[in-house]
Amino acid sequence: MPKTRKIKPNFKLWFEIGESYVFGEGAYKLLEQIKEKKSISAAAKATHMSYRYAWALIKEVEKHLGEPVAKTQKGGKHGGKTEITKAGLSLLENYKRLKEIMTNACKL
Amino acid sequence: MPKTRKIKPNFKLWFEIGESYVFGEGAYKLLEQIKEKKSISAAAKATHMSYRYAWALIKEVEKHLGEPVAKTQKGGKHGGKTEITKAGLSLLENYKRLKEIMTNACKL
Repeated sequence: MPKTRKIKPNFKLWFEIGESYVFGEGAYKLLEQIKEKKSISAAAKATHMSYRYAWALIKEVEKHLGEPVAKTQKGGKHGGKTEITKAGLSLLENYKRLKEIMTNACKL
Repeated sequence: MPKTRKIKPNFKLWFEIGESYVFGEGAYKLLEQIKEKKSISAAAKATHMSYRYAWALIKEVEKHLGEPVAKTQKGGKHGGKTEITKAGLSLLENYKRLKEIMTNACKL
């Protein structure tokens, strides 16, 4: 058989605590959008998740992490603005950094 | 909740051609052992696979790759010695190199 087929490395990255899955590609994309759009519903839309799923995903991450990753302001004329917490930002940035290293390694 | 729980990155690496999975951790460990032990049955034992599964795994990789990754000598007093092909060695070494980069990145 001719060797014309191109072999491509691929990977999946996630964070765990103990043996529990805590944070992966889906939550990463969602948090990234929440950070940008300051809204869970806008972030859910941008990542093609239902609001219900996006909300459950955040709650699941928070359950394993033991603290909030996003906080929604209540009240005010434009209440409902959501901010990423320091813990959420740390997950986001560490995941992004590792993903970049791995993506670049796969291109070599 | 106290933030005493340690977050650990983890990853899965594989090679694909088109959309097809070609080579991953199982085949990597098996080929590594074949290279060392020159025997599929000894390699299967070392990686806790049945001989049948190890053989099928090699055939599956070869089917997607389009060429052999291991070749078994026939005949002779000690016939049956298995050698990794150049293509097999290339998969093995590329996987090992990428896995090392990713493992080290996860330790940072």
